[in-house]
Amino acid sequence: TVNHLFKEIFKAAKELIEEEHLNTLLISRQKKPNDTVVDIDGVKVGNSHQEFIFGPCSVETYEQVDEVAQAIKAQDLSLLRGGAFKPRTSPYDFQGLGIEGLKILKDVGEKHDLKVISEIVNPKDIEAAHEYLDVIQIGARNMHNFELLKEAGRSSKPIFLKRGLSATINEFMNAAEYIMSQGNGQIILCERGIRTYETATRNTLDITAVPILKKETHLPVFVDVTHSTGRRDLLLPAAKAALAIGVDGIMAEVHPDPATALSDSQQQMDIPTFQSFMQEIK
Amino acid sequence: TVNHLFKEIFKAAKELIEEEHLNTLLISRQKKPNDTVVDIDGVKVGNSHQEFIFGPCSVETYEQVDEVAQAIKAQDLSLLRGGAFKPRTSPYDFQGLGIEGLKILKDVGEKHDLKVISEIVNPKDIEAAHEYLDVIQIGARNMHNFELLKEAGRSSKPIFLKRGLSATINEFMNAAEYIMSQGNGQIILCERGIRTYETATRNTLDITAVPILKKETHLPVFVDVTHSTGRRDLLLPAAKAALAIGVDGIMAEVHPDPATALSDSQQQMDIPTFQSFMQEIK
Amino acid sequence: TVNHLFKEIFKAAKELIEEEHLNTLLISRQKKPNDTVVDIDGVKVGNSHQEFIFGPCSVETYEQVDEVAQAIKAQDLSLLRGGAFKPRTSPYDFQGLGIEGLKILKDVGEKHDLKVISEIVNPKDIEAAHEYLDVIQIGARNMHNFELLKEAGRSSKPIFLKRGLSATINEFMNAAEYIMSQGNGQIILCERGIRTYETATRNTLDITAVPILKKETHLPVFVDVTHSTGRRDLLLPAAKAALAIGVDGIMAEVHPDPATALSDSQQQMDIPTFQSFMQEIK
Amino acid sequence: TVNHLFKEIFKAAKELIEEEHLNTLLISRQKKPNDTVVDIDGVKVGNSHQEFIFGPCSVETYEQVDEVAQAIKAQDLSLLRGGAFKPRTSPYDFQGLGIEGLKILKDVGEKHDLKVISEIVNPKDIEAAHEYLDVIQIGARNMHNFELLKEAGRSSKPIFLKRGLSATINEFMNAAEYIMSQGNGQIILCERGIRTYETATRNTLDITAVPILKKETHLPVFVDVTHSTGRRDLLLPAAKAALAIGVDGIMAEVHPDPATALSDSQQQMDIPTFQSFMQEIK
Repeated sequence: TVNHLFKEIFKAAKELIEEEHLNTLLISRQKKPNDTVVDIDGVKVGNSHQEFIFGPCSVETYEQVDEVAQAIKAQDLSLLRGGAFKPRTSPYDFQGLGIEGLKILKDVGEKHDLKVISEIVNPKDIEAAHEYLDVIQIGARNMHNFELLKEAGRSSKPIFLKRGLSATINEFMNAAEYIMSQGNGQIILCERGIRTYETATRNTLDITAVPILKKETHLPVFVDVTHSTGRRDLLLPAAKAALAIGVDGIMAEVHPDPATALSDSQQQMDIPTFQSFMQEIK
Repeated sequence: TVNHLFKEIFKAAKELIEEEHLNTLLISRQKKPNDTVVDIDGVKVGNSHQEFIFGPCSVETYEQVDEVAQAIKAQDLSLLRGGAFKPRTSPYDFQGLGIEGLKILKDVGEKHDLKVISEIVNPKDIEAAHEYLDVIQIGARNMHNFELLKEAGRSSKPIFLKRGLSATINEFMNAAEYIMSQGNGQIILCERGIRTYETATRNTLDITAVPILKKETHLPVFVDVTHSTGRRDLLLPAAKAALAIGVDGIMAEVHPDPATALSDSQQQMDIPTFQSFMQEIK
Repeated sequence: TVNHLFKEIFKAAKELIEEEHLNTLLISRQKKPNDTVVDIDGVKVGNSHQEFIFGPCSVETYEQVDEVAQAIKAQDLSLLRGGAFKPRTSPYDFQGLGIEGLKILKDVGEKHDLKVISEIVNPKDIEAAHEYLDVIQIGARNMHNFELLKEAGRSSKPIFLKRGLSATINEFMNAAEYIMSQGNGQIILCERGIRTYETATRNTLDITAVPILKKETHLPVFVDVTHSTGRRDLLLPAAKAALAIGVDGIMAEVHPDPATALSDSQQQMDIPTFQSFMQEIK
Repeated sequence: TVNHLFKEIFKAAKELIEEEHLNTLLISRQKKPNDTVVDIDGVKVGNSHQEFIFGPCSVETYEQVDEVAQAIKAQDLSLLRGGAFKPRTSPYDFQGLGIEGLKILKDVGEKHDLKVISEIVNPKDIEAAHEYLDVIQIGARNMHNFELLKEAGRSSKPIFLKRGLSATINEFMNAAEYIMSQGNGQIILCERGIRTYETATRNTLDITAVPILKKETHLPVFVDVTHSTGRRDLLLPAAKAALAIGVDGIMAEVHPDPATALSDSQQQMDIPTFQSFMQEIK
């Protein structure tokens, strides 16, 4: 019927607009064919070299972070992570040390000449973060927190953006566009597993999101092997798969004594495990 | 083996702690057996009466909101919604009128003696919202925005909290606890559909979340039939099911001319549809 | 670009074909506007009356089924279910009594003048089932077992078809079409919950599948409240929602002593619970 | 409370039983620590060598299969696939050539000295398959078709078992146990993607299922890169990831002219693409 045909043509036009929309995004490879290399105060991410970000889930003490930093430096790596503002399911769980945690991270980073990355969860803290951090992380639970994304877009620091718990790849790219539309194109995307019916792993690592994001955008792409699997025994296999499929880097959690960690005690590597992880990867 | 048995006992203890944890939550019915009745400046939600919240997806103009408000008032209803801060997938979509939108809502509400509800997305706007709103909504994309939840918990206004896109019921209850732990127990929970593999509907309405939430907590529970289905033809059947299963109220979107709406044009009811919806429900 | 436009027109054409395909299905309401009333040896399903199917998960003994049948008859109901071929996750779980179970079901059904329904799992048993059953059930795990569907389509008995564990509504309708395309249009569709990330319930009851199926097809639609929720405390609320949304009937499991049941002991109603369930529903 | 403690101890005991149950499965590595090597008439699967299975989605003509077989042989590979019984969503889609298809496969296999694999969908055809096939495939839609699994378990041919559309890893292992419990331990497991909310890919490749299955069972594990991604541009990256994570082999679809294929035209490789795929993999 004619009525129906018009409806179909309208739908096709709508899809056309959507696809064209994607192509006109600032993050789109259609818009900028060559790879974006993010410069973290001298450390380059997104060129042919594959990078690593390690560190504890939460910053707990100076000594704890220092011990991990030494181990990272001993592997000739350059990037250190640690959570200071922790988005936790329960309000009664450890919420992180806040600014105090950022200070520890900065001090330890300077001591070992490591660049530091930490999550910010409130738009008002983005500016304060500049004093302490080399990279600002937007976590999975805040990927749809558009106010935070816009504030990150007005920052001069590189942004490490994690995919939301159940965000589509399309939504993930649009979240990055929120940042870039405000002027900040120094963005690293991070696949960290999606929520599915499967309970054998904490999340399901969507490994083919990596080549899709590399194809559709010009941004570097990481895989967080800790949160995507939630299992210590899967960190190494997941990292091997991610490196083989072409990630620009891997993120994983390392803690001097995971059993006593204030968060994520089940999935962090201790230092000897971290050392053999690096041994196996190289 | 003994080793294994210890592991199992440890696990059981952990589960025991989790369940006890749930029972000690301020929102738990174990903690407070009788129903919380939320008082919206005289309009009671959570007693035996079933309430309705209607209004446009976005506040666009005074005239648009006024037209909907008249229709709501004509049905002897008391609650009007309208979005002023719109969390949109793309940064280039209509982002809402902001404070200007809240003002329109307040003016129209006062004119028709309707209590007004709108979403706030940035912790710093919660305080400003007090001047304009009777109920502050926390949307699905911000259910895991714990900074916003804490700020809402320090507010003296009732909070309308939507379940996250793929939040578990347990996470949803903990998000409410973030609010109540800060002192604000005037919370309405809203099931709005969850993300599944099914594409026939925009989300999958998790209808049995309603009796679970009523059993586990003492808070009123709503169903948002618009976002859970995303289809105009399903609003009425979904509302009938929700009322039968025991919700404290229904939320749905009404717009004078959905086809020209700046957001959600596919799923809002126009005014005659709204009138026959109410006719059928009564 | 022209190239792109052609691609879009091709896609629109493809969607057009798919939608037209749906409209040409024998099960489609486009094809046959009036409701199909399934006639179970005199018991009518799919007219304005809402029906009920009760019975134990598994047929275990004559006495067990007889006790449930009495309770059903006492409620003036007409339909009795009981599993004889049980598709179980583990090969070491109780697999059902097989043909022996069908015999018990038939005998008890005749004694109390109840029509009986049971699941068949092997195409070769469909014919044998004719001797014992009034309705042949195809279970969720076999919704994609097309050989079984085709064999059911060649049968003269009404078919009770459950939605697959993670089948889309579109796949579900096509499964029904497999049956009807072989000549058997006496089909009852049954929504029984879908697999999602949520673990508070065994499955997530997709309640709006009911009005969608009623709109798109001319077949009667049931809801299985037992398998969709997996929780005894949710059977009654789920049934109320289903009846309100317009199902043609409800299926639920009843067992004289659920705690000792050979399958599904967590979710069956005992007889007093069943009686108060019926009390509440009426 | 004591009541509660008993409940918890009961639950722990139940979990203990479940875990012990898993360890006592015939497919469990606890039961048999060393890897099972499946012997396909001389071709070994599951030793240190990584194997490949290629071939068209559907067997259409002798010439079509022959052309693919030549290309496979030219790569020094040993295994050829082709569908003869096709489980299709719609009853009006091409259902495969049936036994005629198996004959073509056998003839082509013999001509090029390739071992052949094809899916069987009806228990009654398992025996007939012996005459034509070297490996019997159980497809994703039949992973829960326990009658078919049991029949496969009574066969003397190796079985290639695909994970169900939304099967958990635990259900997948139990499906394999259905086969092995009947005496046939020559089983290859195949991860083929799971159904999630993400629509950028046909399914979501659950890459970490591979190391989990290798750890929990002694069976060889494949990845089907065609069905897990549904996109030609992702076949190579997915294969690289799978090989890196330690699969025993890769399955992918190859067709002389995918555009005219009677099924899965969007995702099969043509022969030059196949050749460069192999080039890249080596």
